[in-house]
Parts: sequence; structure tokens; C-alpha cells
Amino acid sequence: MKTVFSPVQLAHRPQREIADGELVPAVEIPSRAEIVLDEVKRRRLGDVLSPDAFGRAPLERVHTPAYLDFLDGFWNRWTAAGRSGEAFPYVWPVRGLRADPVPESVDGLLGRYSFDAGTPLGAGTAEAARASADTALTAARLIRDGAGSAFALCRPPGHHAGADYYGGYCFLNNAAIAAQWLRDHGAARVAVLDVDYHHGNGTQAIFYDRPDVLFLSIHADPRVEYPFFLGHAEEAGAKAGTGYTRNWPLPLGTDWPAYARALEEACRWLGVFSPEVVVVSLGLDCFERDPISKFGLTGDDFLRLGQRLGRLGLPTLFVLEGGYAVDALGRNCVNVLEGFAGG
Amino acid sequence: MKTVFSPVQLAHRPQREIADGELVPAVEIPSRAEIVLDEVKRRRLGDVLSPDAFGRAPLERVHTPAYLDFLDGFWNRWTAAGRSGEAFPYVWPVRGLRADPVPESVDGLLGRYSFDAGTPLGAGTAEAARASADTALTAARLIRDGAGSAFALCRPPGHHAGADYYGGYCFLNNAAIAAQWLRDHGAARVAVLDVDYHHGNGTQAIFYDRPDVLFLSIHADPRVEYPFFLGHAEEAGAKAGTGYTRNWPLPLGTDWPAYARALEEACRWLGVFSPEVVVVSLGLDCFERDPISKFGLTGDDFLRLGQRLGRLGLPTLFVLEGGYAVDALGRNCVNVLEGFAGG
Ligand SMILES: [Zn+2]
Ligand SMILES: [Zn+2]
Repeated sequence: MKTVFSPVQLAHRPQREIADGELVPAVEIPSRAEIVLDEVKRRRLGDVLSPDAFGRAPLERVHTPAYLDFLDGFWNRWTAAGRSGEAFPYVWPVRGLRADPVPESVDGLLGRYSFDAGTPLGAGTAEAARASADTALTAARLIRDGAGSAFALCRPPGHHAGADYYGGYCFLNNAAIAAQWLRDHGAARVAVLDVDYHHGNGTQAIFYDRPDVLFLSIHADPRVEYPFFLGHAEEAGAKAGTGYTRNWPLPLGTDWPAYARALEEACRWLGVFSPEVVVVSLGLDCFERDPISKFGLTGDDFLRLGQRLGRLGLPTLFVLEGGYAVDALGRNCVNVLEGFAGG
Repeated sequence: MKTVFSPVQLAHRPQREIADGELVPAVEIPSRAEIVLDEVKRRRLGDVLSPDAFGRAPLERVHTPAYLDFLDGFWNRWTAAGRSGEAFPYVWPVRGLRADPVPESVDGLLGRYSFDAGTPLGAGTAEAARASADTALTAARLIRDGAGSAFALCRPPGHHAGADYYGGYCFLNNAAIAAQWLRDHGAARVAVLDVDYHHGNGTQAIFYDRPDVLFLSIHADPRVEYPFFLGHAEEAGAKAGTGYTRNWPLPLGTDWPAYARALEEACRWLGVFSPEVVVVSLGLDCFERDPISKFGLTGDDFLRLGQRLGRLGLPTLFVLEGGYAVDALGRNCVNVLEGFAGG
């Protein structure tokens, strides 16, 4: 299996995040990508390619132009306003407040285009996010060109980012961008299977009304876990997309047997939908020692997860999402990929 | 003019707030109320009364029962969850995310019932907010019983709080609760005039569909100032309330001549509406030395503001809102009240 990666992704270097009323060291850090890359090489998963630049057009198929303008131009505005250090929003247009007109000031813009307070935006963020999306697109093109699988080693992750908001350490929705690009380049039906510990709220929202992209997510119950405000069992798509979203919210403490049952159901859905490509939003934060998560999957369980996906026999694009037990992240990630490839 | 105040309000003792990605000392602090109280006494404005407890019924006329339950029970939940220190939310249900179902975890609840990240919720917050609302209600009753004016020395402030969210240092919307109580106790028409530097988004939202409570606000343009997402000139009410909301967003740097023109227009609206009571949301943060605001009103200008309101000849309830230049807060506040009373 080929891996795509760009060191430009490392330009996003969060220092701190806000958690429980404290500024604490950031967990979505460059070494996450580096340790996965090291393991890919160590275990000889396959060639590592650099991404090509796909430009803005495929991003605009998923994100609004105004949001992309915001991301591209924000750091210049921030520093021009005399601000320094990482940017954090502090006020949001919730129900009854207006998302439009778009504010003119930097603080207003941050809130307008985000949904959480824990995602630092810094000098290299936009460039890294763009490289991360190009990584997903380059890997998607490998699939379009006939590869049975590919691994987009993306960072920052993407699945929490919506059409016009960032959050959850995500800025551009790499998996959604890749899925849409595959739709636009010959695939009639694409499925996204999100196995990150957290619900992929951005991806779900982006495809919620559409029958051509199936969205399936297995994750911690949002009644008790981030992102709290999407990912419930009753969310099944809307309009033409009704029936094309499916969530398996699982309780805190879920370990492999219960997880595997949900995975089995998800695989059944994939079989029925019969997608031309499966995009796997590959978070590794279901791991038992993940510092911000509360599931109980072991390293071997990730091997089993990959094996089960491999048995689907479908072209599969793996897109890296979360996972914060950095020391084990490479092993767990490559376990999924080897499990998939090795059967 | 009689003043109502309760020392229970001082139980809300924020330590820090999040601003520009840093934890900085809180500005909405107990000494704000104490310095105003001292000045009321020093200048012999009139008797200072303690509030009576009005219970939950008048709060439920403005806020949802679920939100009031959240405020009352939150601190116990927070500490039962093993958390300590002030609570800050970090993720919000913006567009596309769901405000219902209500989360079960403390972090989810904080985001569900708030709209900003800069408003610390602590051990004494709910009790202080209730005392602040009782203060407004007790002062409203003075008006109902025939007083020509009364001063509700409220803290924490209220005008940013909506029917089911806190934010902007506000938890219960004291001015809205008082206005609604006056409506429920004989006043056919009540006007709220908000002269705080920041738009009173909570009050506007609460009365937006109603023709019986006129909402007028003079404030810094939300395109460039908090709360960013409400308070634009074109917002004029909806449904039966169309025409009963009016905003005067003014540019940063506004000083008395420009401010006085907007105030004159607001007074004209008040004359046309002919309310039985005017509730003034009395923020003093238009002051030229306010640390978080950017208007240019002087101490004498606040005297002029009070004089102009006095010339309306209408029963007037003053409800304290913002103002963070603590050393001058008492003087500026009592300048308005003396200006009103003295003509
Ligand atoms: Zn995750
Ligand atoms: Zn204010």
C-alpha cells in the first residue's frame, strides 16, 4: 500500500489548547505524523509519495469560498491587527444569533468560522491544512487510477471540519474532499466509514442530504463525549440523503467485542450500498491508552479492524484522523493498514 | 431614587477569563458593585433596599426551565464529576450542529447553554445571578407601586443572556426579567433602552417577536465588536414584533455628539411608543477609559445622558449592566442617576 505524506503538514505547530479552563499543552502535534511515517517505513508498508498540488477547486466542492478565504487570509489579518500568538475564538453564533453578516474583526471572524475553543490557529496552519488536503487528494487519485488501497497520512486531521467551520483540531475535511473528488472523477457511489473515537460531525453534515455518499460512523456516544452536538443514533440523513447516514454511538469503555459488532453492522451497510470506493476516516483514538478518549481497543484490535475492512474487497482510501497516544500511534495505525493488506 | 442591592451578588467571584488565547484576570468582578454602592451612599442618591426573593416563576417568564435547571444544578454536577476551578465551555452547537438532545456530560452542558468562552461559571454564580435578578424585580416592584424611578444595582449583569444561554458575563437577563414582570403586573407597554457599549443581544432575542416590549439599543457596531452576531441596524423585530426592535450601531471611537444624536432618535421612538415604564440597561462601558471598550464618553456625558432620559418624564427603572473602568464606575453610574433625577 502506498502512503502519501508532505512535511509541509508539520507547519501547523499548535503550542497550547484550552481544556477545562486551563491552557494545556496541545495534543494534535507534528510528531503524530512523524511517528506514523517512521512506522510506515520501518514496517515497509510501501512507497511514500509526496502529494501534488490540486489547487483550490476540489476544496470548493466541499467548503465555502468564504471559509477558504478566511483560512488563507486569517494569519495576515491577525498579525496586522497587532495580535501575536495562536488565535482562539471566544464567541459563537449559536441559535438566535446571526452567522451573517460576517464580522469584520479578527475575533468575530474566528467565531463565525469555528465551533469550538480548543483548536489553535497559527502561522503555518493554513499551509499545513492545504498540504493535508492535497495528501488526501493525491491518495484518492491513486485509487482512481486503479490502486486497491492507499494511505493518506494527513495532518491536521479533517473530519470535524464542516463546510464553513473549523474545530476539533480540523480545518479542511480531508476525507470529505477526497470522497467528493472521487465522485467527480468517475465513482458513482462513495462510502465514508469513520472509525475515529469522535463522531465525524463535519463529514456527516457535508453529505447529509445526499444519497451518493454514504456516511457511517462508529464513535463514543455524543451525549457524553465531544463533539456532543451531532452523531446520535437517530440521525439518518435528510432529503434525498435519507437513509444514507448511519451512526453507531457506543458507550464509554467500549472494547473490541462490542466495537466489532458495530463494525460488522457497518460492513453490512457497505455491502448493501456497494460503493466503488470506501474512504476510511482512520482515527486511532479508540486505543485503550489514548489520553483524551475512553474506549478499550488494543494494538491487536486495530489489526483485526484492518483485516475486517480488507475482507470487504473494496478499493479503500485510508485518511488519517485523530489518535493522541503518540508513542503507540504508529503501531496502531500501521496495524490497521497491514491488517487490511495482509488479510 | 431608591437603590436595590444584595451582597449575595458578590458570591459570583470570577478569577480569570479567556481573552486572546490567554487566561487573564477577570474584569467582571465583585468590586464593580461595591464601588457603585459606595458612590450611591456617598452622594446620598436615596435609600438602599435589600431585594425580596421572587422565586423561580418570574425567571421562567424569560428563561427556559431547562436552562434554569442547568444554572441551579451545574456546580454540583461539575464538582461531582471531579472537576474543580471555574468552568469554561469549549464547544458549541453552531449551524448544522444540534442543540438537542441536551448532552449529559458537564462539558457538553456548558456548550449547550452558552454562547461564549469568556464567562467563568463558579461555585457562587447561580446564587449571585438569582440575587441579581431579585434585585431587578424588587426595583421593578417599586415602579409598579408608583415610584418614578428606581435603581437595580445588579451584578452579574444580564443583557447578553438569552432565553437558554449565558455569555458576556451574563447569566440571568435582569432587565428582561424586570420588563416581563412589569408587563405581567399591569404595564401594557414596556420599553427597554440599552445604553451599554455592547449590544444587548439576549434582551433583543427574548422580545424580538413581540410588540408589547420595545427594544432599543445604542452600541458599538457588532461588525467590529462583541457580540458580533446580533445588533445590526437592519434588525427590526419579526412577526408581531416587526418594528419593535431598533438598533443604533455606532463606529468605534464614537464620542458624545454622535452618541447624543442616536440617543435623541431613541428618545423619539420612546415618545412615539409611549411606554408605561422604561427599563434602562445601564452599562457604563461607553466611558472613554473603559479597558475593554472603545467609545469616548466622559463623566459629564453620563450626566447629560441621565438628564436627557429624565426629560422623557416616564417612570424609569435603571438596571446596571457592564462597565469595567472600576475606579470611575461609581461616579459615571451615579452621574446618570443624578442627571435623571435632578433634570
Ligand atoms: Zn478523534
Ligand atoms: Zn458591555
